[in-house]
Amino acid sequence: MAITRTLARRLVASRYEDIPEAVRHEAARALLNWLGCAIGSSRHETVECALGAVAPFSGPPQAAVPGRRERLDILHAALVNGISSHVLDFDDTHARAIHPSAPVLPALLALAEWRGMSGSQLAHAFVLGVEAEERIGLSVFPEHYEIGWHITGTAGVFGAAAACGILLGLNARQMAWALGIAATQSAGLREMFGSMCKSLHPGRAAQNGLTAALLAARDFTSSEQAIEAPRGFARVLSTKFDPKVITDGWGERYELMNNMYKPYACGLVVHAAIDGCIELKREHGFHPEDVERIELKVSPLVLELTAKRTPRTGLEGKFSVYHAAAAALVHEAAGEAQFSEACVRDAEVIAVRERVTATADPAIGRTEAYVTIALNDGRSYSRHVAHALGTLARPMSDADLEAKFRGLAAGVLPPAQIEEVIALCWQITTLEDVGALARAAVPRA
Amino acid sequence: MAITRTLARRLVASRYEDIPEAVRHEAARALLNWLGCAIGSSRHETVECALGAVAPFSGPPQAAVPGRRERLDILHAALVNGISSHVLDFDDTHARAIHPSAPVLPALLALAEWRGMSGSQLAHAFVLGVEAEERIGLSVFPEHYEIGWHITGTAGVFGAAAACGILLGLNARQMAWALGIAATQSAGLREMFGSMCKSLHPGRAAQNGLTAALLAARDFTSSEQAIEAPRGFARVLSTKFDPKVITDGWGERYELMNNMYKPYACGLVVHAAIDGCIELKREHGFHPEDVERIELKVSPLVLELTAKRTPRTGLEGKFSVYHAAAAALVHEAAGEAQFSEACVRDAEVIAVRERVTATADPAIGRTEAYVTIALNDGRSYSRHVAHALGTLARPMSDADLEAKFRGLAAGVLPPAQIEEVIALCWQITTLEDVGALARAAVPRA
Repeated sequence: MAITRTLARRLVASRYEDIPEAVRHEAARALLNWLGCAIGSSRHETVECALGAVAPFSGPPQAAVPGRRERLDILHAALVNGISSHVLDFDDTHARAIHPSAPVLPALLALAEWRGMSGSQLAHAFVLGVEAEERIGLSVFPEHYEIGWHITGTAGVFGAAAACGILLGLNARQMAWALGIAATQSAGLREMFGSMCKSLHPGRAAQNGLTAALLAARDFTSSEQAIEAPRGFARVLSTKFDPKVITDGWGERYELMNNMYKPYACGLVVHAAIDGCIELKREHGFHPEDVERIELKVSPLVLELTAKRTPRTGLEGKFSVYHAAAAALVHEAAGEAQFSEACVRDAEVIAVRERVTATADPAIGRTEAYVTIALNDGRSYSRHVAHALGTLARPMSDADLEAKFRGLAAGVLPPAQIEEVIALCWQITTLEDVGALARAAVPRA
Repeated sequence: MAITRTLARRLVASRYEDIPEAVRHEAARALLNWLGCAIGSSRHETVECALGAVAPFSGPPQAAVPGRRERLDILHAALVNGISSHVLDFDDTHARAIHPSAPVLPALLALAEWRGMSGSQLAHAFVLGVEAEERIGLSVFPEHYEIGWHITGTAGVFGAAAACGILLGLNARQMAWALGIAATQSAGLREMFGSMCKSLHPGRAAQNGLTAALLAARDFTSSEQAIEAPRGFARVLSTKFDPKVITDGWGERYELMNNMYKPYACGLVVHAAIDGCIELKREHGFHPEDVERIELKVSPLVLELTAKRTPRTGLEGKFSVYHAAAAALVHEAAGEAQFSEACVRDAEVIAVRERVTATADPAIGRTEAYVTIALNDGRSYSRHVAHALGTLARPMSDADLEAKFRGLAAGVLPPAQIEEVIALCWQITTLEDVGALARAAVPRA
């Protein structure tokens, strides 16, 4: 089956008019969420480090770095913005596999800004890029991931190549080459989790996918069976390959509709516990010092991944369900500030943290939790969180996404610019020049 | 075993004074051979295409493109020069695995020119880069290659990272990070053989390895067990891993001494058949039209890699043992001209090609061949080529390498400059500024 050529033909045959309104709106939601993450981490140590390393080699100032005044050539912008997208682990997540926006939108925004393209062109290309990366990723998932590949990098490069290829107007053969050039750059090891390289993966995927599209546009050739051939992507990087996943239901359903956004700046498995703490505190209005104990019942996965009793850094705090619950209870929030070094060392948070217990129950799902808070005066409140906020069953609302964006952009952009970016994201499909959005995402002099 | 950290410590502990004279001379031979390949293909369609695609994004004019007047930032110079190194398939080959120079020297020459470093610094870094990439490659070879990985790309990125890390003066921890950042960018599928992407692999390896070293120099972190961890390079990209290969005999033997240079502009596996055809023709002086049939007995690998019966392009001709034998017989040569589009479409060559048969015999080595040429008049000549010219058993001399360089550089550089580059390569270890070599490799205005 000529799956690479088939996918290439379907990608280039797609028209913006084909994309349903609900999918277009989801593209705007993903854009707003992604831009918040990129802006919010624009001063992060990992971003500073990468930018410092590559800046001496950057070409003309073609594209913005959201949250910063530097302008880079589009390839370096794709790299740096791909890193900032993911460094907080706060970006979007497909219900089954990849973080879809981090490898695609950094490449697309840079290319669209440079070429003065419209918002509907960007939205169309983004929807197709997500479709390509998710379908290719799912065709080899979960074995590919279990082997040790960071699928956001390895499949993300296809998304960036497909999306940029759409913006560049590639023909079907060139699109097959772009997918092939992407396949042969596909990389990223899960061994890197916990180091700066984790966020390098979507950065490189964005940059490599953009490069693939630019090369293909000049008729740089690759194999045209790069995905399915015996020595192609799927067979070499996975023990499973289900090619039907790439084409079945094409144009009838959109993978972007399975996208999830995180309200909290930590791993999804902790979210239901955080929800329960925040909800009970808001409803009953007690004070942290009134709390005698917090009892969590959670999925075994929660204790497998986040059982750090005594986190010492903000990053370790993300791997402590105890800290997450305590910080959420004290602050009624679980953003980046709740996973700062200051917060994990805060005496009030530590006092609550020491009263948190967590027990695992295999009957509980990974986005589910039972939370009981007992107070010193004998009162006790319980809450069953069946689905954490941000899951498909209980998605963040547009207003929730705006609030998340405001939290991330605060202190980086002035308030008026924050509202301007939010408005431009909601209007993306009618925006004549994507450059207006890119400029609004950068603090004005 | 902490193999990544051990390798990093040994790399940074090495001193130029430790490198034996014979190894230094081999570095000069490799440099001359590599530079000839890069200059000779500097106007190749693949190079023009890649250069055209990335030039709009290049930064300051920091580094030369041998054979051309454009100057690029060092990252893009590494990419483009990595492509030109390998596009003719005329570059060097380790006796067992990788094309060692193509991923390493493009990165090193660019970095050394930009930083104004000396030839002995370049030679030292090159020797260590080859040591790292060959040892890491051999630790997973041949299973890694058999799975479908193009080891020149996947292991080459470690060579570029290690070599550039030496030039940048990384400490042991930074070197471990550089190896890790290289590991997580390791890529390149054998499915791409026969397309422009094959030479993209060493180009990307050079650029990615250089990037890894630059990032590590700024303390961009990675796993420090990137090679050996359960989700690290060796386990994820191979079914075999023999870590002792990476450290055993370190400093006692040098992998560069197992380097081979090609007299013919195609894959090594075809060379013995070419040798046999040229030798029999020269000895017996028959005409191509006298040939009734040519029977080749070769290693099974020859038919696995080069079994194209009817090549349509010059590049496809390199993957056709039938074409290679026929063109060698007609022209008594197998340079770039014999793998041109004109030559694969030449009626005289095609007439001979159609009379070539090749059978595989597992008892025959990959640089060995039995060639029998039967003539129409009933005469028949046979030759057993035990070792192709250019193998370790029968190496090209320094004079052979000079002649090869002159052939490649003719028409690109004026004759005086050709001799200047040859002299500078032989003097590399006493050159104060590598920039002098980079400048001499570019046609003067």
